[in-house]
Amino acid sequence: MQYTSVPAAPVTAIRAFDRWRWVVPLLVGGAVWLLPHSGFAPGSWGLLALFATTVCALITRPLPSGAVVLLSVTASNLLGLVSIQDALSGFANVTVWLIVAAFLFARGITQTRLGERIAYHTIGRFGGTPLRLGYSIVLADLAMAPITPSNTARAGGVLFPITLSVARAFGSEPGPTASRMGAFLMKTLYQGDLVVSAMFLTATAPNPLVAELARQIAGTELSWTMWAVAALVPGIVALIVVPLVVYRLCPPTLRDTRPAQQLAAERLRVMGPMGRNERVMLMVFSVVLLLWLSAAWHDASPTAVAYLGLALLLVTRVLDWQDVLAEKGAWDALVWFGGLIMLAGQLGKAGLPKAFATASAGLVGAWPWWAALAALLVLYLYSHYAFASLVAHATAMFPAFFAVALGLGAPPHLAALSLGFFSSLNAAITHYGTGPAPIVFGAGYLTQGQWWRIGFVLSLVHLAIWLPVGFAWWKVIGLW
Amino acid sequence: MQYTSVPAAPVTAIRAFDRWRWVVPLLVGGAVWLLPHSGFAPGSWGLLALFATTVCALITRPLPSGAVVLLSVTASNLLGLVSIQDALSGFANVTVWLIVAAFLFARGITQTRLGERIAYHTIGRFGGTPLRLGYSIVLADLAMAPITPSNTARAGGVLFPITLSVARAFGSEPGPTASRMGAFLMKTLYQGDLVVSAMFLTATAPNPLVAELARQIAGTELSWTMWAVAALVPGIVALIVVPLVVYRLCPPTLRDTRPAQQLAAERLRVMGPMGRNERVMLMVFSVVLLLWLSAAWHDASPTAVAYLGLALLLVTRVLDWQDVLAEKGAWDALVWFGGLIMLAGQLGKAGLPKAFATASAGLVGAWPWWAALAALLVLYLYSHYAFASLVAHATAMFPAFFAVALGLGAPPHLAALSLGFFSSLNAAITHYGTGPAPIVFGAGYLTQGQWWRIGFVLSLVHLAIWLPVGFAWWKVIGLW
Repeated sequence: MQYTSVPAAPVTAIRAFDRWRWVVPLLVGGAVWLLPHSGFAPGSWGLLALFATTVCALITRPLPSGAVVLLSVTASNLLGLVSIQDALSGFANVTVWLIVAAFLFARGITQTRLGERIAYHTIGRFGGTPLRLGYSIVLADLAMAPITPSNTARAGGVLFPITLSVARAFGSEPGPTASRMGAFLMKTLYQGDLVVSAMFLTATAPNPLVAELARQIAGTELSWTMWAVAALVPGIVALIVVPLVVYRLCPPTLRDTRPAQQLAAERLRVMGPMGRNERVMLMVFSVVLLLWLSAAWHDASPTAVAYLGLALLLVTRVLDWQDVLAEKGAWDALVWFGGLIMLAGQLGKAGLPKAFATASAGLVGAWPWWAALAALLVLYLYSHYAFASLVAHATAMFPAFFAVALGLGAPPHLAALSLGFFSSLNAAITHYGTGPAPIVFGAGYLTQGQWWRIGFVLSLVHLAIWLPVGFAWWKVIGLW
Repeated sequence: MQYTSVPAAPVTAIRAFDRWRWVVPLLVGGAVWLLPHSGFAPGSWGLLALFATTVCALITRPLPSGAVVLLSVTASNLLGLVSIQDALSGFANVTVWLIVAAFLFARGITQTRLGERIAYHTIGRFGGTPLRLGYSIVLADLAMAPITPSNTARAGGVLFPITLSVARAFGSEPGPTASRMGAFLMKTLYQGDLVVSAMFLTATAPNPLVAELARQIAGTELSWTMWAVAALVPGIVALIVVPLVVYRLCPPTLRDTRPAQQLAAERLRVMGPMGRNERVMLMVFSVVLLLWLSAAWHDASPTAVAYLGLALLLVTRVLDWQDVLAEKGAWDALVWFGGLIMLAGQLGKAGLPKAFATASAGLVGAWPWWAALAALLVLYLYSHYAFASLVAHATAMFPAFFAVALGLGAPPHLAALSLGFFSSLNAAITHYGTGPAPIVFGAGYLTQGQWWRIGFVLSLVHLAIWLPVGFAWWKVIGLW
């Protein structure tokens, strides 16, 4: 995952055979294995140990992530933890193939130079300062969010290629020039999208799921309006604060962007009018965007829509089949994210997250409801280290946490909504927590260390916003 | 599929937008759609029309095969014929991932130059004439066949990389030099493997399935020995004749191979002793081969074994993750074969092949059993145009054909075995009929036209061998 969709992106291969990079994950896995299995079958506990080893190896990086995950998938089958059919199941996952499509889309937008053109326009309009650029990306996301229920389509399919083009227009590529502009913009895109996802019932897949679960468990009805109103104030605070924090933690070294603005205008003139391929690309991009935005009125999945777009690009020969096959980022994401989503899914099937939820719930069983709910939110957030999907996380843990909060006397709407918001926000911490993560991270502007550090700080920021500001606002609107 | 695992292979992109290439498949699909649906739901019949369009487009090639199949998969979902989950299911198929592994293996064997070394030794030993080379490949396959139940592992994983290296050692690459040697060797490898697969109960997956179905349907027990004895004479005749026919239809233009033999000896001297990566590759190759050969004594699937080998190559850094991602042939096969196997699988689920089997069986219901059985074998063979898997074909059609043959008085063992042999031989006709096909075809030495033409001639050859010679031999050994 050290490269992008740019064929010529610098690749920093880790050549040294550092023994500790292998030893540490294996020790962690061994330690997990030796813990008391608390009633779980050895196979289930073995999965947990393997998952811990894998996540640890994703951090120590004895090999690139794709290779690490491929090793884990192979081990999961050879150790008898997962059948060969199940081991391969992640490679047929709908989100994984949407990610593949997003990479191919980005390639089309880059190759036709449409992205460059949009980037120059964006820089001319919003490029006065890097921060303004960051905010304009988040605002564009916010504008689409109420009617795009796939955060992967929105952040990965639409905004990622444009952000990539903007970064490149500033001469910022993965590697030494990443910190110039790209790292800041990419991280802002990703983290901003999580806030935006939390703000509307229809902005991402786990939200309607949470609403449905709340209805089933306690008859708690969460309307679209109630969700949006409850998210309004903490959401706006987060939208303002998150780009600032990213700006602080990974500051763009290019501060004076005015020369870039002039250059952009000059380059636009040189580019001249749109060529045939560029126009086709824009048309296809618009069709896909419209179909994603109108998801409520048809039942084509975002993935099918993406492949309709890709089909149009292939038929019109804007993209060549060779271009598709050469898009390493797509195949890399297929392998590592597909494998990881399988491992996390099997962990969920084995009932481990649910058991963790129940055990955590037991711990807070004697606390006042507000303290218990706050503690549950913290646990809910950090347990996302073990998930590769927002929906899987909400499915596994929301019911237990929600039920316990109710049992302790928490107001149902308050409990459902606060857990609902964190169902998106929790993806802040890793590079595999939700669909856009492999895409934006895969562009290669941030190292995994940077990604995780900034993510962890932002998780604290979110707790600092959504607990005090959120609870205050929810008092004002009468949720408790 | 115009390239191989050689990074520098010549790619002949079809640039011209030939309208007829689109129109013909769409007309064929439309015609199928307009046929009476004979009681099938529109969705099932639509799948049939889509499948016909796809196969037709694979022949007319408006776009490369991968793109054609991707369009069909997209259409299958957007037309409401297949759910999005089902549409992606082929990408988690165990055989598809074994094919991916075979491509990566071939890359390792090429990159380390182990293949070159084995090729020079092979040429020195058997390279007196192209025909002798062809026969030596088939013999190597035969030697492994009794104990390697995956024809994909055998022909695709083991023999393909060696054959590829031999072809290259003769200066034969895809493109203008393909006919020099590579086309003949590749086609011989593939077609020889089908004969070999038919010869032992344990040589390929459909064989034990046929044995099990025969037992379930009529209590007909097929022992390993009975299978091998019944296949012996027609099998040997076919093993002798098939390479000759391929030699005739796609003659290697390099006739005098003695200079190549001298060159091979010289090159071996220049290569010197094996390097570290080459030795590791040989060790891993041997481990994988041993595990494939010992499949009866452990329960690791051939795919898991292949990925164990790949894992070892990655851990020892013989293969780099970048090499894996750059292996376009693997990703191409994943998309086109994965998509095709899904379409064919859905067709099977919709019950169309079974209905075809029943209808065909009805047609021969008044014939003497031997004529009916011969007719059923012909139908069984050519209906494989609609299948991307030997197992799927046997599952869908063997029971009906076997039952009808029995009903007409055919001796049970004769009927079961003859249908059993054709359960492998039927893959002669297409480049997607069984696992090794996408691999060997994907090397790019033969055009699809050549592949299909030679395949069709060989299907006639097989009928001419297995019906008269087979029936005579089966009389001798008392099967009827």
